[in-house]
Amino acid sequence: MWSEALPPGHVVGGRGALEAFGQRLPRAWRGQRGLVVADAAVAHRLGVVERPLAAAGAQVARLVLPGGEASKTWASIEAIVEAALAHGVRRHGFFVAVGGGALTDVAGFAAAVYLRGVSWAAVPTTLLGQVDAAIGGKTALDGPHGKNLVGAFHPPLLVLADPWWLDTLPAREWRSGAGEVAKAALLLGGEAWAALAALPAPPAGRAALEQLAGAAARHKVRVVAADPYERQPDGGRATLNLGHTLGHALEAAAGMGPLAHGEAVGIGLLAACFLSEAVLGLDPSVQAGVRALLQRWDMPTAVPALDARAVRGFLTKDKKTTAEGLRWVLLAAPGEPRMSVVPPALVDEALARALDPGVP
Amino acid sequence: MWSEALPPGHVVGGRGALEAFGQRLPRAWRGQRGLVVADAAVAHRLGVVERPLAAAGAQVARLVLPGGEASKTWASIEAIVEAALAHGVRRHGFFVAVGGGALTDVAGFAAAVYLRGVSWAAVPTTLLGQVDAAIGGKTALDGPHGKNLVGAFHPPLLVLADPWWLDTLPAREWRSGAGEVAKAALLLGGEAWAALAALPAPPAGRAALEQLAGAAARHKVRVVAADPYERQPDGGRATLNLGHTLGHALEAAAGMGPLAHGEAVGIGLLAACFLSEAVLGLDPSVQAGVRALLQRWDMPTAVPALDARAVRGFLTKDKKTTAEGLRWVLLAAPGEPRMSVVPPALVDEALARALDPGVP
Repeated sequence: MWSEALPPGHVVGGRGALEAFGQRLPRAWRGQRGLVVADAAVAHRLGVVERPLAAAGAQVARLVLPGGEASKTWASIEAIVEAALAHGVRRHGFFVAVGGGALTDVAGFAAAVYLRGVSWAAVPTTLLGQVDAAIGGKTALDGPHGKNLVGAFHPPLLVLADPWWLDTLPAREWRSGAGEVAKAALLLGGEAWAALAALPAPPAGRAALEQLAGAAARHKVRVVAADPYERQPDGGRATLNLGHTLGHALEAAAGMGPLAHGEAVGIGLLAACFLSEAVLGLDPSVQAGVRALLQRWDMPTAVPALDARAVRGFLTKDKKTTAEGLRWVLLAAPGEPRMSVVPPALVDEALARALDPGVP
Repeated sequence: MWSEALPPGHVVGGRGALEAFGQRLPRAWRGQRGLVVADAAVAHRLGVVERPLAAAGAQVARLVLPGGEASKTWASIEAIVEAALAHGVRRHGFFVAVGGGALTDVAGFAAAVYLRGVSWAAVPTTLLGQVDAAIGGKTALDGPHGKNLVGAFHPPLLVLADPWWLDTLPAREWRSGAGEVAKAALLLGGEAWAALAALPAPPAGRAALEQLAGAAARHKVRVVAADPYERQPDGGRATLNLGHTLGHALEAAAGMGPLAHGEAVGIGLLAACFLSEAVLGLDPSVQAGVRALLQRWDMPTAVPALDARAVRGFLTKDKKTTAEGLRWVLLAAPGEPRMSVVPPALVDEALARALDPGVP
């Protein structure tokens, strides 16, 4: 078990973290009413969360949502608001979000706007949630125009990332998490990158991935703590977007469902490596290592079904676009991220490769 | 013209404020793209806002919404997001909300959540907006369960409250604003309360009300600056809720339309005076003075059409309810607000009076 401060709260992770939930609960919640918003996939395992809350004298009700990207809608916010009002959750009450990254995103956004903001905790139950989505206070909804274009910075008071939940995780969710762990390993460099490049195929590789996931989560905590609102123009929190610029556009163009987030990020990492070779002279062995990993883990390395113009359209809507153009996170080497505006012709080439399954 | 600091921005008010818009624009907006979100009622008068923006090198597009309480919905947020994306408004871009209190509430909430938050300015064009709604950073939507149950604290960088807009204000909007000005005068006491009690009937009384509105706006700025997030349990920002506890419940029970906000607040002020007499010994001449004012201004002093149980149901959902019960803002005297939990039987009596047009 490990613990890191992330103001205004803490992130606690690793095996055993769930047992510590009761001790880590914010004191202000004792005696208050709260709402547990849970992903349907884990609704049968909520005792580990609800028992410590009851023991602390909090009165909680439970709302189960379908989970998954399709739940990141205003209809979910209305369902959460209705359930919270019905249970009598007040301004000093709280929400606890238990589920995957989409569930913690939407429940966190509900916490940001219910009665103009109540405190909350995130209990991520997927690999993706534990290494990325639930950490850092970004909450959001999806809309017809793209993912996460509406949201709020509303950090939880507690994030509890225990791999206990992962025991029943479907193979696709493992792959999706692997994409984000790969990103973190590229940003960390050194041992993490070496461990990633050597990661065995699943199921044998899952234990090693779980270890690497802890390092990935702690890396994110440190980056967010140093730049909580993503205001450092050259680095800081924006570096966490490695692989996401194209990844988000691929996801948006594909529509919900066909491409898991981590799978899109995996393809985005290949594109970032390709651009980094051209712009910063990144050693081609890095792209080769990422590609080999994706293949070992049965993850796609291209999305042939998409239309390049549609993807380009979503690229121009990226939240990180500035007046001078879209800024990409590139790598001079593993562990050495750099922000860079990339020439449009080069972006087009990277995009063509991402849509071409024939790239070796 | 007057100006008050209200971090992170300023509030500028009085005749002549509009001419100062260009000089007061946040520097960071120069050269950025922004969206003007305007109430249909003032769409023909937007040049005074858009010209200074263009002169400062900002590129703005315009979205006109119907305005009014019915526009405080998620559908409006989606329309604003779509228009902002289409115009290319980025994280460093901005919104300018021009309209009544409902319009600045909904556009402000859109600014709070678009790309997880962009900066904004409010240009309130109604008396209600200029003395209350646009000041203080509270933004919100309405839903099936009540008013303002979803929202965010997201203070604008600039509030520009120029009575120039009021020249074409309908009589009902003057009455609605009068309810909030009356509240402020009761909280201010002294000369403000004396001026309110002596306020002539409209249209002659409008010039005096405009003067009093400036004092009301500045009072709100000072109270909000001292307690921006309404965290002081005994006073501070919560005192601004005088007349609103019952007022909001009446509005919610009446549904949108029949009862203007300021009219509901006017009836709520009578109830607050009644409770204050019983609990704090407030001089009955205060309630009599408020009642006489409402009558001179053709404002209702009761809502006979409502069901007491429905109103009571909404009272229990009030955002300010704590574990010990609903806390009312009462008055020991004009200028001396006190927070107080009121016995249920007394609340029932106040409610019965608010629904009985026969009370003298």
